[in-house]
Amino acid sequence: MMIVMQEQASESQIEKVVEHLGEQGFDVHRSTGALRTVLGAVGGNRTFDFRLVEVMDGVSEVHRITEPYKLASRTFKSERTVIQIDDLRIGGDEVVVMAGPCSAETEEQVEATASAVRRAGAKVLRGGAFKPRSSPYSFQGLGEQGLQMLRGAADRHDMKLVSEVMDVSQIELVGKYSDILQVGARNMQNYTLLRELGRTAKPVLLKRGISATIEEWLLSAEYVLAGGNGDVMLCERGIRTFESYTRNTLDISAIPVIHKLSHLPIVADPSHGTGRRDKVAPMARASVAAGADALIIEVHNDPERAKSDGAQSLFPEQFDRLMTELRIIAPAIGRSICLEPVGGKAWGR
Amino acid sequence: MMIVMQEQASESQIEKVVEHLGEQGFDVHRSTGALRTVLGAVGGNRTFDFRLVEVMDGVSEVHRITEPYKLASRTFKSERTVIQIDDLRIGGDEVVVMAGPCSAETEEQVEATASAVRRAGAKVLRGGAFKPRSSPYSFQGLGEQGLQMLRGAADRHDMKLVSEVMDVSQIELVGKYSDILQVGARNMQNYTLLRELGRTAKPVLLKRGISATIEEWLLSAEYVLAGGNGDVMLCERGIRTFESYTRNTLDISAIPVIHKLSHLPIVADPSHGTGRRDKVAPMARASVAAGADALIIEVHNDPERAKSDGAQSLFPEQFDRLMTELRIIAPAIGRSICLEPVGGKAWGR
Amino acid sequence: MMIVMQEQASESQIEKVVEHLGEQGFDVHRSTGALRTVLGAVGGNRTFDFRLVEVMDGVSEVHRITEPYKLASRTFKSERTVIQIDDLRIGGDEVVVMAGPCSAETEEQVEATASAVRRAGAKVLRGGAFKPRSSPYSFQGLGEQGLQMLRGAADRHDMKLVSEVMDVSQIELVGKYSDILQVGARNMQNYTLLRELGRTAKPVLLKRGISATIEEWLLSAEYVLAGGNGDVMLCERGIRTFESYTRNTLDISAIPVIHKLSHLPIVADPSHGTGRRDKVAPMARASVAAGADALIIEVHNDPERAKSDGAQSLFPEQFDRLMTELRIIAPAIGRSICLEPVGGKAWGR
Amino acid sequence: MMIVMQEQASESQIEKVVEHLGEQGFDVHRSTGALRTVLGAVGGNRTFDFRLVEVMDGVSEVHRITEPYKLASRTFKSERTVIQIDDLRIGGDEVVVMAGPCSAETEEQVEATASAVRRAGAKVLRGGAFKPRSSPYSFQGLGEQGLQMLRGAADRHDMKLVSEVMDVSQIELVGKYSDILQVGARNMQNYTLLRELGRTAKPVLLKRGISATIEEWLLSAEYVLAGGNGDVMLCERGIRTFESYTRNTLDISAIPVIHKLSHLPIVADPSHGTGRRDKVAPMARASVAAGADALIIEVHNDPERAKSDGAQSLFPEQFDRLMTELRIIAPAIGRSICLEPVGGKAWGR
Repeated sequence: MMIVMQEQASESQIEKVVEHLGEQGFDVHRSTGALRTVLGAVGGNRTFDFRLVEVMDGVSEVHRITEPYKLASRTFKSERTVIQIDDLRIGGDEVVVMAGPCSAETEEQVEATASAVRRAGAKVLRGGAFKPRSSPYSFQGLGEQGLQMLRGAADRHDMKLVSEVMDVSQIELVGKYSDILQVGARNMQNYTLLRELGRTAKPVLLKRGISATIEEWLLSAEYVLAGGNGDVMLCERGIRTFESYTRNTLDISAIPVIHKLSHLPIVADPSHGTGRRDKVAPMARASVAAGADALIIEVHNDPERAKSDGAQSLFPEQFDRLMTELRIIAPAIGRSICLEPVGGKAWGR
Repeated sequence: MMIVMQEQASESQIEKVVEHLGEQGFDVHRSTGALRTVLGAVGGNRTFDFRLVEVMDGVSEVHRITEPYKLASRTFKSERTVIQIDDLRIGGDEVVVMAGPCSAETEEQVEATASAVRRAGAKVLRGGAFKPRSSPYSFQGLGEQGLQMLRGAADRHDMKLVSEVMDVSQIELVGKYSDILQVGARNMQNYTLLRELGRTAKPVLLKRGISATIEEWLLSAEYVLAGGNGDVMLCERGIRTFESYTRNTLDISAIPVIHKLSHLPIVADPSHGTGRRDKVAPMARASVAAGADALIIEVHNDPERAKSDGAQSLFPEQFDRLMTELRIIAPAIGRSICLEPVGGKAWGR
Repeated sequence: MMIVMQEQASESQIEKVVEHLGEQGFDVHRSTGALRTVLGAVGGNRTFDFRLVEVMDGVSEVHRITEPYKLASRTFKSERTVIQIDDLRIGGDEVVVMAGPCSAETEEQVEATASAVRRAGAKVLRGGAFKPRSSPYSFQGLGEQGLQMLRGAADRHDMKLVSEVMDVSQIELVGKYSDILQVGARNMQNYTLLRELGRTAKPVLLKRGISATIEEWLLSAEYVLAGGNGDVMLCERGIRTFESYTRNTLDISAIPVIHKLSHLPIVADPSHGTGRRDKVAPMARASVAAGADALIIEVHNDPERAKSDGAQSLFPEQFDRLMTELRIIAPAIGRSICLEPVGGKAWGR
Repeated sequence: MMIVMQEQASESQIEKVVEHLGEQGFDVHRSTGALRTVLGAVGGNRTFDFRLVEVMDGVSEVHRITEPYKLASRTFKSERTVIQIDDLRIGGDEVVVMAGPCSAETEEQVEATASAVRRAGAKVLRGGAFKPRSSPYSFQGLGEQGLQMLRGAADRHDMKLVSEVMDVSQIELVGKYSDILQVGARNMQNYTLLRELGRTAKPVLLKRGISATIEEWLLSAEYVLAGGNGDVMLCERGIRTFESYTRNTLDISAIPVIHKLSHLPIVADPSHGTGRRDKVAPMARASVAAGADALIIEVHNDPERAKSDGAQSLFPEQFDRLMTELRIIAPAIGRSICLEPVGGKAWGR
């Protein structure tokens, strides 16, 4: 931590800051310049609230030197984390595509959608059974019945399953059916939930809160990592800005930023990131071009009749075309997208 | 809902929209102008996702006519709600001040702070026992022991108590000690929690999420109201903007906006709203001048040694001076601030 | 400037940074800690682009120590600036109120409005003759004819006049009629204009850009100050945030922040800050309670027929009532609002 | 325009609104539903300030039906505009790359940079001679001498030139040397400048203001188009959000949004959009993948010694590698990037 004193700071103000930091276990080094005094403080506690010093008399600015997260940082672990689920590798050379409906509605809908996205090259089925909805009057999901539908379809099509867990009380149930536990944007700072997920053995897909800074997001990942679960993938899904034409603004620059600050894989969600079907494909392409390790995309066999998020769900044929485009883009950054045979069928061009 | 078609929309595109809305239970009225067709749709479901229509071919814009919340709206209930806890009235003529430490740390700290804020005119003691912290390595609160300290001090000084509940599992425990259950900004969209709070008989103080629109905030209140608990007060505590000099930007205009849209009382939190001790008093004064029904302010008997939020906690003498200033301002809007005798002592000017 | 190296930074990376800073005229002090090296750099150029170092290999973070502005800072001048125009003092004990129409439309409108606001206690008439409009098809102002109307009314009612200058080419003309030259929010970073205004002898009212940080705003003031014109007042008029219920979000906390960072007076504009007539009074009261040195408020004798900004213009009787409320609030912070006699009439309570 | 009345609106309130709209030249159609009255108003003035109605008693919400811009809209002109400068076509099948230094500094620097970017495939040289700088103490550009250097280099390498014009007074001079006149983000709402540019015959590159909505941006384009200059290209260069890790947030979704709303070509500026050299390539790739018609990228022959924007300027070899990556991506969306011979040399793979 570096403390910049004001030019007119008095000697006694400076001493009071030095003393205060000493009490908190910091070693303080003082350097007096022509214009002002700067204090360097090392040691002390990672969680020390630097704003405490910021409001002391005579203090101009305080800068933290160390990132507040540790296990999530690239300083701590320099090689990238690859999350392995059987033979699926997230964070490796292949860009993994997760696709499926917003929520499970019926057996037919889940089966039709899963079969279509699998055929196009998706390796993970997405779908919700517990839905966080901003209105209490909206469809809230089918619960366990939905999970059963999703698991069945995933198994039939040799896919992994990712599904959202909204609450500590749902971890066990969702974990019974799902391969990846998703934490929604609204729960990014539900610390009780994150702490519990740190104790499970399932990979966690942690969505960025709608207005979370990258630092806060990594601190939330730290909660899971600190609990002993190292399989965390981060998911950029759009931030809130002043622009309201799109539902959110997909922060594509977060992809290379995360790759620089952290070793964890980064997933992009162009469906929630835009909220409009006609913007999903361009933003999915952009995400892969920017280096995303995986995509998660909403597809529905009949989006105009979907019970939730229909406006941002692709038709199966749109998803198919998108996958073709992505296979052209991925090699530009030395990566590939699902080309091996599935059920005896090879993808290619 | 009003649907504005594009100027070049074809007849078949228009018909497809009309048909789709009909299927969803809407009565559709079509008006064809010189340049474009506009469709008015009434009836149908309050939770219908209007974006579904927005992405249909030929559609230019869709406007919702009805607010998505109902019980929280002034349309539903035109007179203002006053929340009564024994003889304390929140939302009435008196501006109620809630004050106390960020979190309970020791018996001495709680007692010293409670006694000081009570003397200055606060009628509700604030203080946390379960703390949501962005870092897993920070102080997380004393739990039940903290609640006992707070309840004891509140009782000794004839105050009500407001304390945060972070999770469904804490409702019973916190409810046993606290008069008002606080929902933190990070939990504003924790729907499982909100739903449960709708089933309790305790008043709820619902903080605005750091990037929640006023509409989303009222929808979260709706979750509690829809469960049968009508005693919800909203609390503005700062939103996230591009400006980083202050920790958040206290949106004071939300105070008159809430008074227009809703019948629920509105509380302002200048401590979290600014994050800096030296900005708390000006923003507290501004909040009262703008019409806030109550304030919630962090005060600590020794803020420089506080375990959390010390930088934004007032010294007791600062709080005292602030209360004097507020007593001058309140009459400008026809209100008062705690002037009746407490423990035999009358406040004055 | 302080440069924090990454933990794994190599010796040669560190040396490259030291060398680069040396070339730029900095004295560099190196301190090697257990985990990482931190470099302190002093001297060098105030305008050195610190991002140049930020992107060098091995660098983790760079913190600037000195504010980039100088003349505008309280470090440079610790006592507050009072701008004096004849016997009017902006930044002194009295809160000055500027009021009038958005733009001059007719002689009758200007006279009726000026006379009403003067009677209620305004000392400066506001009004535009050149209007920046987001649409090329909107009313763009009356030009010199408008300035003549405004000057005439100001003189008849013993008021000062503030009017906007949009372009270098208008400085002379507007300066001929107006006592204070206003720079609009959209022009806050029109450096050609600011530079020219630095060479005039008229006080400048510099509005904050809709998304300008406080630092950028002070840097824009610096352009005027550096040209030799010390009479700059800053005007907070609302920033753009995600919330769209109000047109902008009036950042009231900017008032105490400016008072801390700078010696310049701060004016609040609740009309543009909210964009809605029914929110102007609460936000005007809040601004005074927070310590604003002056207010600038749109009032129109017939707002429903105004050619611009009618929706945010007060009716004269609303303005009158507001002034009465403000006179109650000002003493809470040791200030007053226009109580001396005007035209033989004394205001009182 | 559609006006939704409050449920409790009285008959006289409704009539007052109808009357007011009638006075303004609107035809009003009234439809009375079970719960509330909705008024549809057509005709009237495109620039009518709908907020005037919004603040009338009894009014709940007002929705505008028509976009406020006309010439810039796809409704007005459905086929995409291709801007032709000799044989260069912006908005056609080829993605055009503009590259060069932030500002002209020396003959050597301009020549070395121009030659390198031309070799890699850029067809337009970018470079500034008049620089808008947030600090008055920063390098402000070489003026006409810089323009001469840039023009010389462009001619020697058979490139077009784009350079910024900051003020009406510079149009003639910059226009003498430059093929495309750039309007910077800070000037996006400098209407005096836009209006003048509407009278020139040179193509205009209009950068999006740092916090401009897409609608405001199109309205600014409208100023130029309305003056008779149809050759406007829009340039997304990052918006201001709460995230401060990157200097700005490049809003890549603006690319497909502009393509939907307007016929004008859209350019992406990943240099200003990120502010950091190491993020330029990923964001350039993402922009092409999302459908950008052109890119504008800062490249410097010695970025570490650049007088401005060095931190975000690519080294020539980084630019070269980026162009190779872009040539892989462009075909995914049916486009190409500069493959024809330049100076006898063919690019290819």
